[in-house]
Order: sequence, then C-alpha cells, then structure tokens
Amino acid sequence: MKVLRIALLFVIATTYCIAQNDEDVLKTIYKTSLTNGKSYDWLDYLSNTIGGRLSGSTSAELAVQYTKSELEKLGLDKVWLQPVMVPKWVRGEKEMAYFESSDGFHKVNICALGGSIATPDGGTKAQVIEVSTYKDIAGLGEEKIKGKIVFINRALQPELINTFQAYGGCSSERYRGAAEAAKYGAVGTIVRSLSSRQDDYPHTGSMSYGDLPVAQRIPSAAISTNDAVKLSEALKKDPNLEFFLEQSCQQFEDVLSYNVIGEITGSEFPNEIILVGGHLDSWDLGDGAHDDGAGVVQSMDVLRLMKESGITPKRSIRVVLFMNEENGLRGARKYAEVAKEKGENHIFALESDAGGFTPRGFSFTTNEANYSQVLDWKPLFKPYLIHYFELGGSGADVGPLRSESNVLAGLRPDSQRYFDHHHASNDMFEHVNKRELELGAATMTSLVYLYDKYGVNPVPKSSNFRD
Amino acid sequence: MKVLRIALLFVIATTYCIAQNDEDVLKTIYKTSLTNGKSYDWLDYLSNTIGGRLSGSTSAELAVQYTKSELEKLGLDKVWLQPVMVPKWVRGEKEMAYFESSDGFHKVNICALGGSIATPDGGTKAQVIEVSTYKDIAGLGEEKIKGKIVFINRALQPELINTFQAYGGCSSERYRGAAEAAKYGAVGTIVRSLSSRQDDYPHTGSMSYGDLPVAQRIPSAAISTNDAVKLSEALKKDPNLEFFLEQSCQQFEDVLSYNVIGEITGSEFPNEIILVGGHLDSWDLGDGAHDDGAGVVQSMDVLRLMKESGITPKRSIRVVLFMNEENGLRGARKYAEVAKEKGENHIFALESDAGGFTPRGFSFTTNEANYSQVLDWKPLFKPYLIHYFELGGSGADVGPLRSESNVLAGLRPDSQRYFDHHHASNDMFEHVNKRELELGAATMTSLVYLYDKYGVNPVPKSSNFRD
Repeated sequence: MKVLRIALLFVIATTYCIAQNDEDVLKTIYKTSLTNGKSYDWLDYLSNTIGGRLSGSTSAELAVQYTKSELEKLGLDKVWLQPVMVPKWVRGEKEMAYFESSDGFHKVNICALGGSIATPDGGTKAQVIEVSTYKDIAGLGEEKIKGKIVFINRALQPELINTFQAYGGCSSERYRGAAEAAKYGAVGTIVRSLSSRQDDYPHTGSMSYGDLPVAQRIPSAAISTNDAVKLSEALKKDPNLEFFLEQSCQQFEDVLSYNVIGEITGSEFPNEIILVGGHLDSWDLGDGAHDDGAGVVQSMDVLRLMKESGITPKRSIRVVLFMNEENGLRGARKYAEVAKEKGENHIFALESDAGGFTPRGFSFTTNEANYSQVLDWKPLFKPYLIHYFELGGSGADVGPLRSESNVLAGLRPDSQRYFDHHHASNDMFEHVNKRELELGAATMTSLVYLYDKYGVNPVPKSSNFRD
Repeated sequence: MKVLRIALLFVIATTYCIAQNDEDVLKTIYKTSLTNGKSYDWLDYLSNTIGGRLSGSTSAELAVQYTKSELEKLGLDKVWLQPVMVPKWVRGEKEMAYFESSDGFHKVNICALGGSIATPDGGTKAQVIEVSTYKDIAGLGEEKIKGKIVFINRALQPELINTFQAYGGCSSERYRGAAEAAKYGAVGTIVRSLSSRQDDYPHTGSMSYGDLPVAQRIPSAAISTNDAVKLSEALKKDPNLEFFLEQSCQQFEDVLSYNVIGEITGSEFPNEIILVGGHLDSWDLGDGAHDDGAGVVQSMDVLRLMKESGITPKRSIRVVLFMNEENGLRGARKYAEVAKEKGENHIFALESDAGGFTPRGFSFTTNEANYSQVLDWKPLFKPYLIHYFELGGSGADVGPLRSESNVLAGLRPDSQRYFDHHHASNDMFEHVNKRELELGAATMTSLVYLYDKYGVNPVPKSSNFRD
C-alpha cells in the first residue's frame, strides 16, 4: 500500500512537472516571438522589396534566393533548394472593361483569372447573360449562351461565420465557369470576385479549361463586387447592353523553380520529420503579404524561435517554402514525391496559409487517437486565447503528405478579413498587423514543440482518417 | 418507477427543446446582423459625416441629435435625452514640437493630452530628463527636475497577450505624470504614446493635475512611439539637447450635453432593466470609429436586431449612449445617479468599448452564482467562435451600476490592433471591418436575448463580488 502511494505520488509529481515545464516553454516561445520575432521584418522585405511572386516570375526567383539566404543565416543543419518545373502565366497589360447601356458607358474593375487566355486583339464585345451559378449554364443551352459573355454573379454567403466556408461555396464558379460556358458557345465569362466585401477590387485566382480543346477556350475575368452589383442592375433595365473586355494574358512553357527547405536535424529521432510551411509564390496583383507571405515568414520563424527559446529538438524540424500553390501545386507534389522516394517519415506537417491574422487555433486531418492526443494539449494554449482545435482540413501544400498514422494541420487565424484581400491588389503588407503575425508564429512553434517532445501516438489498428 | 421514467423523459425533452430553440434564435440573430445589420451604415455616418466627438464640441451635439433621430426610427417604446453637464476642453491649433541636438533640428509628432494647459505664448523650450516611469520623478527630486521637461518613456509590454493589460500597466504615466513632475519644478512633460505599435501617431488621452494648484500646472503632451525612441537615442548622445513644445489647448466652463437613451419596454417584467451601451463622445484626433463609435452602433443595433429577429422581450431592453466617458465619465455617473433616485433595477448591463474587432467573448463583474449561470450558456456561442467568458471587468460607463445581485459585462473583441488606433488620428472608419463589427453586435444581442429570457439568478445569501 505504501509502495503504491509512493508510486502514485511519483506519477502525479512527474505529470505536474511535465505540464509545468510545457507551460513555461510556451510562455518563453510567445514572449520571444512578441519581443524578438523576425517574421515581420522578413515579411516587409518579401512584400515591399520583392512584391507579388507569381510562379515563373523574376520576383518568385528573387523570393527563392532571399528566403534561402535568410534561412542560411539561422544556423540550421541543412538548407537546400528542391527543383520543380512550374507553369508560367503572365497577365500582360492591365485589363480593360466597360459596359455600354442605354445611359452611357460604365467602366468596370476587372482582372484576368489565372490561366485564362487573352481576348482577341482589340478585345471582345458581346451581349451579357447573367447566371447565379455555373451550374445554370447547361440548362440555358446554346440558344441562350452562344455568342454571349456569361456573367456568373454568385456572392459569398455573409451569414457563414467561417469565411473559408463561404469562399469554398463559390470557388467552382471561378474555376469551372469558363469551361462550362465555352461548351455552349459563349465568347467569354465574367465572374463576381470571391470577396467578403463590397468594394472596387477585382480578385484573381486560378481557373481551368479542364479537357476543353484549345480552339474552344474563351477568356475569363473577375469583376469587382461593386461592379457586379452595378452590372446586374443595369442588365435588369437593359438586357441587351453590351460588355467590352480586353486582356492580354498568356501561358508560357513551364520553367524551373524551387521549393526552399531548411532543417534542424533531430538529436534523438532524426528520421521523424516535423514539417512547417507555407507557399512562397503568390498572385501578382498585390504583394502577397497575407497569401502567403505571412505563412512563409511564420514557418521560417518557427525554427528560429525554437533556437532562440533554447529548445533542442529531438526530431527533425523542417521548414518548407512551397512553390506554385496558387496555380498548380507543383511544389507540394514534388516535395511529397521526393519524400516518398526517400521513404521519409513525416509524423506531423503544419501549414500556415490563411493569412497573418490573430491565430484562433488549428484544424487537423488525422485519426481519432492522434486527435485525442492533441486535444490534451489544448489547455496549454488557453492563456494565448487559442481555443479552436477541430478536425477539418490542413493545407493544400501539406495535403499530399497524408498517411494513415500522421497528423496534418493548418493554422487557423481569424478569417473575417481574409477574403477582403485574397488574390487582390489590396493584399498588402500594410494590412498585416505585427502582433497578430507574431502570435501566429508563436502558436505554430508551440505545437511543433509539443509534437517534437511527445511524438505522435502509434497508429491504432482500426484507425480511420478524420477530417 | 414508470412515473419517474416519464417525468425524466419530460425533463430531457423540455431541456432539449429550450436548448434547441436558443440555438435557433442565436442563428437568426447572427444571420440578421450579417445580412441585414445597420451598425456599419450608422458608423459610417457617425465617423465620416460627424467625425471626432469630444465632449462639449459641436460634433458631440450633432452625434446626440443623429443617434436620437436614428433610435426614433426604430419604433422603440421610448427614446429620450438625459441632460448632463460635461467638461469642455479644446485642443486649439495643432501642436508643434522639435528637439535641437548637436546634429540639428528634429521635428517630432506630438499632441496635447486631454485636460492639459497650453504652453506659454511662443512655446516652452527646455532641457529634457528621461525617466522610465513617473514613479522615478520623486527620487530625482527638484535638483534634477527643476526647469526641465520630463520625458516619461515607458513602452507597453509586448509580451502581454491582452493589450488592455499592457495599456493598464502604463496609463498612470499619462494620467499622473504631469502632476508629479510639476511638484519638483518641471516646466512640462512628454509622455510616450500608449500604443502597441512603432509608428508616427501621437495618442492623446486624459490626464489630471489632481489637487495641484492652478499656478503650478505644466503642459503635458504625448509623443509618437517612433519619436520617443529617437528622442531617447538623441539624449544618450547629447544629454543637454533642448526640446521645444508649443500647444494652445484650453479648458472652458462645463456645458450642457446628453446621454441618448432608447427602450423597448418589457412585456412581463418591465421593471427589470437590461442595458446595452457604449460612449458617444470620442477624442478629437481621429473620427472615433473604434473608440467608441463601434460600441455605440452595436448597442443601437442590439435593440433593432431583437426586433428584426422577431424577439419580444419580457424585460425592458435599454440602449444608453453615454456622454463624456473619455474625459470625465459624467454621463455614466449621471445615468447611475438618476437610476438610483428612481429605484431602477438594472439586472444586467453590457458595454462595448474595446473596438469594433472580431468578438472573442465577454468579461464579467458579478457574483459566483451569476457567473456560473452565464457559463452554462457558453456552448451556445461555440458556432460563432465566441469562447472567452471570464471574470474581470466590464466597462467604465456601466461600472457605476454595480450592485450585489446584478451582472455587469464587457464585450471582449480581439485586442491586438486596438491600441494601434486608440485616441489617435488613425482611429478611422476605414480600420473597422464590417463583418467584425456585425459579429460583435450579434454577440451582444445573443447575450441580451438570453438574459431577457432567463433573467438573472436570485442573489445567494453570502454572495461576493467577483472581478
């Protein structure tokens, strides 16, 4: 009985010490990030000196060189570039559009969607047919569609609290609209910008022609939310108004680019890899500060903050700055392919690709046992107002690393402002708050610290994926 | 046994129905706010047409008339103005300051603190002594202080997650600095702006001379964080540099102003009052959009959202737009005084005065039983990412309504950006996000709905205040 009591006391004492120690380490991590973080300075350079970094551009190449050079200054065990061929799409001259209704000309704010073809020289002018989703196009058929510009006017649902859910509900309009309209003889598509706000910024983003033959492809552009409302109102009064669109974008041959990778090799379990990352490419309109400059610099700072906080990782901590998330995901696929060839074991992979806003928590893609493990750590995050630990997705770049036993996660910042800036010319450094960015870096570092210390649960026999 | 089982089933069924119903009501409230809220339009007018609304100013008077008129449009049972005498302090011409060191003149960004006297005509020029807190002044004594300008250079602690805590740690520097320095013969004080950011905006705010005789009073101003750093560095190189300050602010006689009040009278318990409010006055430098235009329009929208959501309150729901929170709290004191005279029973009072940012939850000042009651409602807020239900303060304006049995609360929005804008010329409408503001209004309405439906617990015999 006495032995049992002593054993029990020992267990309690040990548990207490571990927990106490973790609390202290998290405190150190947060303090280090908020008083001595590097993420904001890095983001300043990436946004203001380099700017928008579309795959295949000179800026993307500069971003590769800059981040590699900055990682080399951190005294990591390894820093390297992983070659990957990426698509190169170039916007060309600024787009021009207007509609001509009974009361005159109305210039509208528009931008080509990524991957779109150009209009013919001198632009395209045609009547407009408005639909509320691309799914309506088939029902209208060739009779109503042929020779016209299809205007897909679907707004994000404001009542959805998570704006990513609202975005997800509309993203197929942008991605598939042109391919669907072209089948019925449309000469172009205009898609309402996927923005949470009524304003004048057009928001670009990727679109695809699917298996549509080259000859049938039509130009596709995004129109600002304010102009979508104006056009829709004008069409009610004047259904025969004409819309003019001119854009000169072009798709080139694939070019060589790189994922940028840095690693602190684990002292005890070097073959267990913990990955943090974001994507280095961005759209071209703004400077890509939120999407995904923030994720890039936070991921870089995770390794630095561990060092600054005096943590010597037992497992290998790897930062990966993926190339080409926006219009191809080539970097992520290449990374996963090479990892598979090498038989690398990624036990945990965390992506930050939802903006540099105040962090609220994480979403996870993993099995029940692993999810249960991470829930045990949730109380450690309470002092930092990190409360969201839910199953449901991770990040596009870490997605291909999914296995039966590992944990994929995404940092979940406050989402309310994200789609005000997403893929638009107002995704700018000035809209990133230093403290919010640094809190995100600290939150990521804290979870990486815990996975490094405790590892991931062994796979249960009948585990099921959950997300 | 069978009877017991049926009774149990009945209890479960009833509980389920109530909970289910509350979930639905909250869903309706949030949807109404996000799709059909008025708070953003009201804030647009208050910020962009009326602007900064310092007590006693014409703008403050316009704000009284505007909000009264808007409340009257809502079809409330009563709308009235409550007279209150308020201080009138006027900034006058824009302040001017520079320091002259061995390498030349350096203009600095500065603003008079609210309540400060002017400098003598032609300004004040003197050597500077830097202290890290006003508490150091006494130790330096007349020998080191006399004839000098005291520069209080205390930065907000970046490692504190809640920026209000960081602000609280420094606010006495601004409030008491001048009175303390004057005791030892200083000719002026310059206080580092209470900002979370390094930038060029000086942040004003109230200061007090305490019981210092009029003849001994000295001018006091806030300096931007960037210029505080520059001045401190210059002082290290050149301790004898001279600082020039000119400001022409003036205190006038008290003037008549008003609290603006509207009420939906309760259908069952009209004498149980539930109050929501913010303060209508603001500092003069910006347009007071976050402090506290946001709280004003959210509070107004609480009553409107209840109506729009089809809720007929059992208790009286009162919106109070308090005058003069910033430099006197006269409106709040008057309101509480009148309420006491009339024997009014405020069972719950909720203030929004922490900016129009994404709401995270509430803080409460109440007894244990009441706190326990509100914690039971916390799960209802989970879908809206409202997770913070903690004891610890409410709001300056509702503070005087504290009783042994009631509940005072403050809306707690994300605090990271608040002190970037607080009391400075960048507290502007453009920095308020529509969705974030509307989520706040919905969150307030939801809690008001619950207190209206369930009332507040009866006072336990040995209750103690908790905050």
